[in-house]
Amino acid sequence: MTQHSVDVAVIGAGIVGLGIAWTMAESGRTVAVIDPAPATGATYAAAGMLAPVSELHYQEEDLLELMLASARLYPTFIEPLGAAEAGYRTTATITVGSDPADRDSLADLRQAQLAHGLSVEQLTIREARSREPFLSPRLSSAFSIGQDHQVDPRRLADRLQSAIAAMAATEKWTHDAFIQQNAVALLHERPSDAGSRVNGVALADGSTMRTGEVIVANGLSAGRLEGLPDWLALPLRPVHGDIIRLRIPDRLRPFLTSTIRGLVRGLPVYLVPRADGTVVLGATQREDGSGGVSAGGVHQLLRDAQVLVPAVTELELIEVIARARPATPDNAPLLGRVTRRVDALEDDIPGLIVATGFFRHGVLLTPIAAQHCLHLIDGTADDRWALALFRPDRFSKPTPWRSEK
Amino acid sequence: MTQHSVDVAVIGAGIVGLGIAWTMAESGRTVAVIDPAPATGATYAAAGMLAPVSELHYQEEDLLELMLASARLYPTFIEPLGAAEAGYRTTATITVGSDPADRDSLADLRQAQLAHGLSVEQLTIREARSREPFLSPRLSSAFSIGQDHQVDPRRLADRLQSAIAAMAATEKWTHDAFIQQNAVALLHERPSDAGSRVNGVALADGSTMRTGEVIVANGLSAGRLEGLPDWLALPLRPVHGDIIRLRIPDRLRPFLTSTIRGLVRGLPVYLVPRADGTVVLGATQREDGSGGVSAGGVHQLLRDAQVLVPAVTELELIEVIARARPATPDNAPLLGRVTRRVDALEDDIPGLIVATGFFRHGVLLTPIAAQHCLHLIDGTADDRWALALFRPDRFSKPTPWRSEK
Repeated sequence: MTQHSVDVAVIGAGIVGLGIAWTMAESGRTVAVIDPAPATGATYAAAGMLAPVSELHYQEEDLLELMLASARLYPTFIEPLGAAEAGYRTTATITVGSDPADRDSLADLRQAQLAHGLSVEQLTIREARSREPFLSPRLSSAFSIGQDHQVDPRRLADRLQSAIAAMAATEKWTHDAFIQQNAVALLHERPSDAGSRVNGVALADGSTMRTGEVIVANGLSAGRLEGLPDWLALPLRPVHGDIIRLRIPDRLRPFLTSTIRGLVRGLPVYLVPRADGTVVLGATQREDGSGGVSAGGVHQLLRDAQVLVPAVTELELIEVIARARPATPDNAPLLGRVTRRVDALEDDIPGLIVATGFFRHGVLLTPIAAQHCLHLIDGTADDRWALALFRPDRFSKPTPWRSEK
Repeated sequence: MTQHSVDVAVIGAGIVGLGIAWTMAESGRTVAVIDPAPATGATYAAAGMLAPVSELHYQEEDLLELMLASARLYPTFIEPLGAAEAGYRTTATITVGSDPADRDSLADLRQAQLAHGLSVEQLTIREARSREPFLSPRLSSAFSIGQDHQVDPRRLADRLQSAIAAMAATEKWTHDAFIQQNAVALLHERPSDAGSRVNGVALADGSTMRTGEVIVANGLSAGRLEGLPDWLALPLRPVHGDIIRLRIPDRLRPFLTSTIRGLVRGLPVYLVPRADGTVVLGATQREDGSGGVSAGGVHQLLRDAQVLVPAVTELELIEVIARARPATPDNAPLLGRVTRRVDALEDDIPGLIVATGFFRHGVLLTPIAAQHCLHLIDGTADDRWALALFRPDRFSKPTPWRSEK
């Protein structure tokens, strides 16, 4: 079989894998992205909210710094890809509550947001409705969050694929930038030693690819890759979400200009308006193991969205899908190199980076994940987040290796 | 262009057109069915309830006799097509109400049903739930209707197409049984006289087909056909319906064995279980002119179905579509020959039959429509329903023609 050689192989062509691959290509490296079906997993269903402030809601405060840093990178990250083409919009997000308990929850959240130095502007219902006339008059509270934005993940994934393909053509790479098959195993310098340098990937068709670096970014499938150390636990679980796409009839346009995030009797729901005249409604979080679209989930989304924006009933339903997001026990990503202990020393497995477990935050965290991967390879990584919080081996206890010189 | 010649051309390959074509083929005639996209209109979304008794609900009592006659024909009609393969099921229908007003409505309906000699068995909620354990305990009333059955319209349409194709092969027809293009005009014996014998159909590709009889069964498109008399009003309007298909997880099977029809705070909803482990949820009736799936309609169906069968929330949503049904001012079909007045005499336009406007009842009325068309051609038609109630020219005032001998 043909054997190719690339600087960086990225396993997984979701938004994170594509973002990393693009950043690597921009840095002058040759890249191969390995995925049987690019951008069809969680990326395909993602709403694309770039919302570090309102995501604080979910009490994952440890993530806040990473999310804010990634949000700051977004304009620079997306500019060469075509911000407008990728559906990048910097309109504010409006958060609303429906009943008194929701008002209290959002007020508590705002205190936490302000304590972190974030800017959250309280609005009267009248003010909120003057910005978004389709909001219900029967809301309990409203806030504006200027720094929470959005992107269209499907279009961003398209732009990333085009940009990588264009780079491959310009630079006259001798291999295909996209390899539509499964990666089955990591290859090591010493084949029997999973702690030795990773120097290739074995593909489902029996061919192999020689690599300078492999980045494991295939979401929930990461743990199924052979050649990862036995002791490395990648405790990923699928959290399913149902997403509804609605088309706005001409007579109701523009309908919404801001992303609306609401709490309705304690349940979160959001409406993300796209430039193409559609609205994305989401998102349930189900851990029942069922991969299909939940009838109960769809009902809940339509019911609660109507409470916030009654005219939702007049929109056309054009798509309903469900996808699984890869979540970890602490809901933070698995991002970085994997530590091994060689004799008395701790060191990283060379040639290997893990980038998965982004859960609800894959789209937002793509620029920082890509930048961090680049810095790891360059040897310039800022360890402030990677080492402590997001290392992929934080749920594992490394086994000592004997050095085999 | 090629010119073919057939005994009967059927314009429209919905369930009615296919049923007529099959009956014509069975009678030994050569047939061509003309439709750019067979069985993709209202047929594709139909739930397939064969329910003359519970359809009396809609106060179209004039239709009752026709519906009952067609229901009686169903076993004979469907037997040569494969009753099981077509999803024909003779389990009873259970009708239920959710609140006291629904109970009163269903009780009033039952009086009307009994007055027409129909059999409707009152059940206690306990009895209903012993038959269908997934029914909610919080219902206001329940009835069993033994003679209301179901068929799977998509599978029936498939069976009809296969049967017609098999007949064409066996009988060695010299033309294709299915012509996937639009019929643009009826052709007449005297080209300038739309009241003269219809002897052909002009197709979109410029070819023509010579015919013994043309049956216009293309639903809402019937009125757009050139060559119909100017004075003939076919006042068809689209009534859209949203349909949801749900998959029953293994752990919940069989879920339902009967079709459940309910009134929930006055709104009708039904759940039709299929042999393949799915349930069809319907059906809204919208005359807002919007062809897409209504977000409000989907919400209403899921909400109301849950009131009757709470575990609907646990099913997987696999399809949501909307289709338009062709309705008439009196909600009865346009079925039969078209009257012309020649000098002082009334007569029918030879070679022409109209069969459209079946609204909610196309699947149920297919056997009687097919039989009636056959009898019209044979000259053995029983005029008891056709002449008075369902004639396609009943909304028109025929212009006298001068005879042109």
